[in-house]
Amino acid sequence: MIVREITSATNQLIKDLVKLKQTRNAKELNQIIIEGKDLIDMAYENGLLDMVLTSNRSYSYDVQTIICPSFILEKLSSNKSISDIIGVAHLSLDNKGLGNRIVYLDGVQDPGNVGTIIRTALAFSYDSIILSLDSASIYNEKVIQATKGALFSIPVFLDVSLQELKEKGYQIIVTALRNASDYKTLTPNDKFVLVLGNEGQGVKEENIDIADEVVKISMGNIDSLNVAVAGGILLNHYKKE
Amino acid sequence: MIVREITSATNQLIKDLVKLKQTRNAKELNQIIIEGKDLIDMAYENGLLDMVLTSNRSYSYDVQTIICPSFILEKLSSNKSISDIIGVAHLSLDNKGLGNRIVYLDGVQDPGNVGTIIRTALAFSYDSIILSLDSASIYNEKVIQATKGALFSIPVFLDVSLQELKEKGYQIIVTALRNASDYKTLTPNDKFVLVLGNEGQGVKEENIDIADEVVKISMGNIDSLNVAVAGGILLNHYKKE
Repeated sequence: MIVREITSATNQLIKDLVKLKQTRNAKELNQIIIEGKDLIDMAYENGLLDMVLTSNRSYSYDVQTIICPSFILEKLSSNKSISDIIGVAHLSLDNKGLGNRIVYLDGVQDPGNVGTIIRTALAFSYDSIILSLDSASIYNEKVIQATKGALFSIPVFLDVSLQELKEKGYQIIVTALRNASDYKTLTPNDKFVLVLGNEGQGVKEENIDIADEVVKISMGNIDSLNVAVAGGILLNHYKKE
Repeated sequence: MIVREITSATNQLIKDLVKLKQTRNAKELNQIIIEGKDLIDMAYENGLLDMVLTSNRSYSYDVQTIICPSFILEKLSSNKSISDIIGVAHLSLDNKGLGNRIVYLDGVQDPGNVGTIIRTALAFSYDSIILSLDSASIYNEKVIQATKGALFSIPVFLDVSLQELKEKGYQIIVTALRNASDYKTLTPNDKFVLVLGNEGQGVKEENIDIADEVVKISMGNIDSLNVAVAGGILLNHYKKE
């Protein structure tokens, strides 16, 4: 473990790291700033932690370690209450294969929803997540925080088309309100993709058109659930028993 | 419908309304700023809309209507992309009775989670919501937005104790990870309270102690679900069929 000390916020490394707070830059370099001990531990356990910056010499992650004053941590942090450690990690994209049980986000735009669904998919042992290009980015800091580290354990793919998955033999299960069956009446095939749609518009028409099954959750008063909540109910129900 | 025009942001009414963006002031006056046509419509339908401010004379809510330029709407808005109308509404607290099926939030702190759970409770026809004093406030603007208007339709109570509910004959069902049964093994009584806990700490020990039933959701990889997602799964399962 390489330890060095940085005391100035104008240090080039610090300036480069601050840029990672922009989703665009994080994506380009496949490198993200992570906050919170849990998130750092999960990145570390998955071999995806590149560096830590800390004002506390007692941490012992076996990665490049920068000792720095807390005003530098503050510059890197997006939280109001900052901790004594910040991590730099990368994502391992596309490397484990899609697996059999896939969650597909079709234009889910709220970062909290995207992150929460990734967390839920890991909790219920799904094999991978696919994000359409118009979904919130996996490099968005709010997405990263909301995953609670799940993004380091479950493979995340970007922009795979449903048509392609259908041709590969996956059953396409789409959520929609119209012409849909109650989700409980369906037992998915071994290989399936569950498609969750945009907060306002739902799943895109062209994706509903190629669906093998269209399901909905029956409600009482209002036909409206948050997409991460609806996703949670479905991912739980269709999980491998 | 009373229509008047205001053109200056230093107008006393506008200054007073801007203050409602602070949770503290909104709570004190029981008056909230609401944004988005859906939210305004739901407040109106429930007789809880007090006033609208708009730059567009074509709206016809039968409430006090202030015609004003968009820079004034911008001052009142918390969104980046503002619309041409903003509403002022109040909440109808405690007036419909607790009912038989209650959701109790014990220190749930993320405003998005609190709002989302309120929305879910309405979707699955629960009778009321109770927020402990250390939960995010129902007057917090992010809570309000996340409810998508559900807070105008489902009674919200503040700070009722679980002990009190137990004495009134409600079955207390608490979520926790330790010493808990799978939620599917339980069929709730007619009168019950489902207790959801803080994002980090879960339900308080003293509340677990008085529980009649302790339930959990079985997971695979990690014992961790977002509380609004866990709540969604449980509220759906325990809803009235």
